[in-house]
Amino acid sequence: MSTADDHRFMARALRLAARGLTTTTPNPRVGCVIVRDGERVGEGWHQRAGEPHAEVHALRAAGERARGATAYVTLEPCSHHGRTPPCADALVAAGVSRVVAAMQDPNPQVSGRGLQRLRAAGIDVECGVLEPEALALNAGFCLRMRAGRPLFRLKLAASLDARTALASGESQWITAAAAREDVQRLRARACAVLTGVGTVVADDPSLNVRLPAAERQPLRVVLDSTLRTPPDARLLGLPGGTLLLTALPPDDLRAQMLRAAGAELATLPAAAGGGLDLQAVAAELARRGCNEVHVECGARLAGSLLQAGLVDELVLYLAPLLLGDAARGLCRLPGLERMEQRIELEWRDVRRVGHDLRVTLVPRVRAAA
Amino acid sequence: MSTADDHRFMARALRLAARGLTTTTPNPRVGCVIVRDGERVGEGWHQRAGEPHAEVHALRAAGERARGATAYVTLEPCSHHGRTPPCADALVAAGVSRVVAAMQDPNPQVSGRGLQRLRAAGIDVECGVLEPEALALNAGFCLRMRAGRPLFRLKLAASLDARTALASGESQWITAAAAREDVQRLRARACAVLTGVGTVVADDPSLNVRLPAAERQPLRVVLDSTLRTPPDARLLGLPGGTLLLTALPPDDLRAQMLRAAGAELATLPAAAGGGLDLQAVAAELARRGCNEVHVECGARLAGSLLQAGLVDELVLYLAPLLLGDAARGLCRLPGLERMEQRIELEWRDVRRVGHDLRVTLVPRVRAAA
Repeated sequence: MSTADDHRFMARALRLAARGLTTTTPNPRVGCVIVRDGERVGEGWHQRAGEPHAEVHALRAAGERARGATAYVTLEPCSHHGRTPPCADALVAAGVSRVVAAMQDPNPQVSGRGLQRLRAAGIDVECGVLEPEALALNAGFCLRMRAGRPLFRLKLAASLDARTALASGESQWITAAAAREDVQRLRARACAVLTGVGTVVADDPSLNVRLPAAERQPLRVVLDSTLRTPPDARLLGLPGGTLLLTALPPDDLRAQMLRAAGAELATLPAAAGGGLDLQAVAAELARRGCNEVHVECGARLAGSLLQAGLVDELVLYLAPLLLGDAARGLCRLPGLERMEQRIELEWRDVRRVGHDLRVTLVPRVRAAA
Repeated sequence: MSTADDHRFMARALRLAARGLTTTTPNPRVGCVIVRDGERVGEGWHQRAGEPHAEVHALRAAGERARGATAYVTLEPCSHHGRTPPCADALVAAGVSRVVAAMQDPNPQVSGRGLQRLRAAGIDVECGVLEPEALALNAGFCLRMRAGRPLFRLKLAASLDARTALASGESQWITAAAAREDVQRLRARACAVLTGVGTVVADDPSLNVRLPAAERQPLRVVLDSTLRTPPDARLLGLPGGTLLLTALPPDDLRAQMLRAAGAELATLPAAAGGGLDLQAVAAELARRGCNEVHVECGARLAGSLLQAGLVDELVLYLAPLLLGDAARGLCRLPGLERMEQRIELEWRDVRRVGHDLRVTLVPRVRAAA
């Protein structure tokens, strides 16, 4: 049975976990608080893959005071030897008497084993305190563990009449500086930033994180079935690396040139209607440890991802402008001919960001028939 | 010098004035509170043109207690004989010792004369308490008095990607019931509901107020330069009347048929590029006493009004849906080829209305160079 104190300390552990928002990939963000006699005696959070887990940091800080204490962890402690020894064993060895976890390990193959090991050692174990918040913090990691694909966050920016550029292609700037900085924060938390080759050819974007405190550059991913990316594209030479996903074989001449220009390449199956099989793209990125994929792209790829069910979160910045019907639209949805085929979403968040409005939506979950 | 009590009683007078929101046309909404020794002894608001003004209702309620009292009025009391005798005289006759007005009469020809008459009678007069709120309540009336045109409120409803209908024309329903009921309230407060003949031909709308408490039906106005409105159009036979504005002469055969079908007609100058001269439309509606014109129309007329500077308020309902690029857009803005030509707006209000989001914007006022 959990208490108000349990919620308070778990909330603290979640705040600590969030400090790893931009750095833990491919690992989840995890926080830990160790409490003895109502007092926090140790805290920690996971900072980078390969470095100690949250529990280890917190136990080190607590030292001998961990004996008989309660450990709050935002994710079930691991029970397997990965790059670090199992945290469940470390908690047992430190002599904690109670462990409160926010959620089980989302990997169905291992879920529950860490808690089991703690219980077997005589520790009082509780699970599920602030579980929705813990799930939200690691929604991408959970999706990768459970469904074998990353979370896709599609960022779009448009005028109030949903136009992303004039007919001429002119698009700088529709949204204002505050919105563009907000986008930088979305990029920074993502494992990868994905776009289509059309955007690379048209805009030659960097797609990197340009925040002063950026500790890590996400992998850039370009969907480029026929390898049209120019070898001098700006994003090829940047830290974090650039992966071109293509339908061409690895020994293609252009593939060799692009590898020489610093790109990594992977060959994936093509889709029936042209371009790449997007489910294969999702699986490939999951295989590479991507939890959250941030997408910035044109109307064609945006529409394809939406129609493939691969947009888990849509973040749309709306500028208080009108550009008119001749300007370029937000998303292409071929074959949408009847209202029943429309893509239905649900509001998650609406707020002003500087001069612009930011609306966040998720796919609408239809009630089961 | 105004006091906190002055603000409190004026706020009450403004709330009373707002009770006439849907009924006072072509008059402004006005409220009055009479206070003696800190106590409200009489209240009133203007209900319908031709019926007594707010001050008269309030003075009647106060009776002898008006002597030596303070009268709060949301608009300068009238000094001229209209359909009713001057309210300034009534306040003098009742013996009030102080009058607090929120704003002067917006008609520059008469502004200040009512207050002058009160001062000449030895009454202590103050003006400007809660003036911005008073201006907002009668923004349309003020615009008509000062600029000779009504306030135009353009209502649009679209999917998140700013599409108003599928390519096939199918549009029922993009927004949900709560948004459609909200639109009914916007129609009810307007003096006239305006549309283009394209919408009449395509949708055969009623454009009436379907609220249970509706006391008045706004005038329906159709911009129909070549009189394409079918004589059996649904909006022709409805209470409130329907005005067709056309470029054809009054003796045109179709004009005669439409008059026989219940329409009123007026001939206006045509615009150079086709359709009617929109400034002439605005002047004609002002001449007919329209303070607020509620517009529901297609992309073409919406764009024309925006480009003519005749959208004073844009109310856009956004449904959490995507319909794709092939669907119909929000507004046509011909000739918009460079970013500097874009139409810039400012956010006024953002709120959820049932399942949809309602955003209200006004034209952006550029700082003078």
